Amino acid sequence: MSHPASNQAAGRRPRIGITMGDPAGIGPEVTLKAVASEETLEACVPVIIGDAPYLAHWARVFGLAPGARGLDIINADSPLPADLRAPIIYHLNNVPGSVEMGKEQAACGRAAGEYVTAAVGLIQSGQLDAMTTAPINKRSLHLAGYHFPGHTEFLAHLAGAGEVAMTFIAPGLRVALLTTHVPLAKVSGYVEKARLESLIRLLHRELARYGLDRPRLAVAALNPHGAEGGLFGFEEAAEMIPAIESCRLHDGIEVSGPYSGDTIFLRAARGEFDLVISCYHDQGLIAVKCLSFGEAVNVTLGLPFVRTSVDHGTAFDIAGQGRADHTSMITAVKLAADLFRARRD
Amino acid sequence: MSHPASNQAAGRRPRIGITMGDPAGIGPEVTLKAVASEETLEACVPVIIGDAPYLAHWARVFGLAPGARGLDIINADSPLPADLRAPIIYHLNNVPGSVEMGKEQAACGRAAGEYVTAAVGLIQSGQLDAMTTAPINKRSLHLAGYHFPGHTEFLAHLAGAGEVAMTFIAPGLRVALLTTHVPLAKVSGYVEKARLESLIRLLHRELARYGLDRPRLAVAALNPHGAEGGLFGFEEAAEMIPAIESCRLHDGIEVSGPYSGDTIFLRAARGEFDLVISCYHDQGLIAVKCLSFGEAVNVTLGLPFVRTSVDHGTAFDIAGQGRADHTSMITAVKLAADLFRARRD
Repeated sequence: MSHPASNQAAGRRPRIGITMGDPAGIGPEVTLKAVASEETLEACVPVIIGDAPYLAHWARVFGLAPGARGLDIINADSPLPADLRAPIIYHLNNVPGSVEMGKEQAACGRAAGEYVTAAVGLIQSGQLDAMTTAPINKRSLHLAGYHFPGHTEFLAHLAGAGEVAMTFIAPGLRVALLTTHVPLAKVSGYVEKARLESLIRLLHRELARYGLDRPRLAVAALNPHGAEGGLFGFEEAAEMIPAIESCRLHDGIEVSGPYSGDTIFLRAARGEFDLVISCYHDQGLIAVKCLSFGEAVNVTLGLPFVRTSVDHGTAFDIAGQGRADHTSMITAVKLAADLFRARRD
Repeated sequence: MSHPASNQAAGRRPRIGITMGDPAGIGPEVTLKAVASEETLEACVPVIIGDAPYLAHWARVFGLAPGARGLDIINADSPLPADLRAPIIYHLNNVPGSVEMGKEQAACGRAAGEYVTAAVGLIQSGQLDAMTTAPINKRSLHLAGYHFPGHTEFLAHLAGAGEVAMTFIAPGLRVALLTTHVPLAKVSGYVEKARLESLIRLLHRELARYGLDRPRLAVAALNPHGAEGGLFGFEEAAEMIPAIESCRLHDGIEVSGPYSGDTIFLRAARGEFDLVISCYHDQGLIAVKCLSFGEAVNVTLGLPFVRTSVDHGTAFDIAGQGRADHTSMITAVKLAADLFRARRD
């Protein structure tokens, strides 16, 4: 699928599909609150992909403004209206009456999985421009028979994308992950020359798609202090440096490292690099969360469309209480709209 | 060795030994600059453990104030004066004329190792109250035949301490490491119930030594998202939770977790915990460096004396250029003085 140069043109606001996420988590709440916000409506036309009566129930419980309570609804077997201007719920009718808030359950995993599948279908048929996802619970997803470690891998599968990169974008900081949801003990096995080269090339290519030509990429070391010449690990010398050199010398990509994990993110935040490649989840996410002040957005690079996500999980401990902060959802939806406009295929 | 209750008494400023670190790095520079600072002199009487002509050379090159250039000198075979009031250099005469700045070399590793050994000796003989270390280069140390992964293990060996904890203290954040300078691929093997229990008990005991009774300890998960019920790793369920439960139930220690690594440090910084136990180096250090604004100090807990360190390395890339920032050294020396005063043995 290809978006012509018209992405940027026209006064038309992009249509952003928002999957409401696991019904037992805070996804429905942050989705409703974000869609009730003027900031969201100025940036896009939101299409909530979820369950209409379930959303109406929570809009009532949380005392949301009439606008959010009286959202238009369209059944999932009908096409979205061509001239959509107001928010709408794309209704899948798949949340059972017996949802236990804050609990892992197969029915919720199944519902959450169906929202993601539907959103990808709507983008592929040209009815949506981009998508933003509310959090899913990976265990519930597994209970429902979806065997993906997370959204990113699930979306890559649905979109038939060969390779994707989980990337976090915050003001002044971009971080991509070489590995995502794998046990820490297995990370070293994934730090391979070919894999790192492939990610570097993907990021170089994808950032250019959004107007960032010749991005300065930097790679975080796997081991403490970059292994200090081999004292604390071999992967830097055996796999990482050869990959970086190869991309720099043969592909002409501006990439450097590996740099010590404990300082590379601060260096990037100060403007030295455009994007940091982190070897594993916590290495990148600790930096992102500590430096972003809650403004980080998870973006999947490498898909044939724009997908963003909130930077938090289902927060089962506060689900259904009306206390969830929807700032990250607004930020994610706005970034999806911005990226869609900037994107060149 | 025991400091009586008099640590706190008297107008006498504590005597803090500052090891000047690897001669080829920025250690001599930050040491000289810190000792030239009024802030340092108000907090303590600094004793630089290093090489006098070498320090004099750099004081001249960097154009430091006469105070720092004209420091008193005492040879390492003499005892320190009993009534020491001004900074002094404890001269080991061990830097060769041929030092190459910014390079790993055995002679520099040997010199750096001798400063640390001398400082511990001076504390053990009651001539110094506490010590602060400038950075060493671990590779140079190895070339010189010191087979320790870092200062922490070296000091534990010199002091005959059974177990120590590398801890970072910044305003509003304390982080201790379960593992320090080990390859990431080997970290999982160190995440054992007995080892974690032992660290929790040590931290509980040591924080009390500095007046923090019933500290609220929190443990960071090893795996992404705390392994989400076993999907991304087994260590939380098999080793970490049993250790935490045992310390809580049998020892009455206020400890909880494991919590997801990407949010636990922010929670601690917001006041929810007094100290976070991190499973490995980068997990803890990324958070410390991103959240501390350069005010973190490395403290070794479990030694029979107070030892602090700067939070940076030898910075070979800028060694000898006069551009090194000595803020961390001042902060480390001041914290050593504060901790010495607060300590109860």
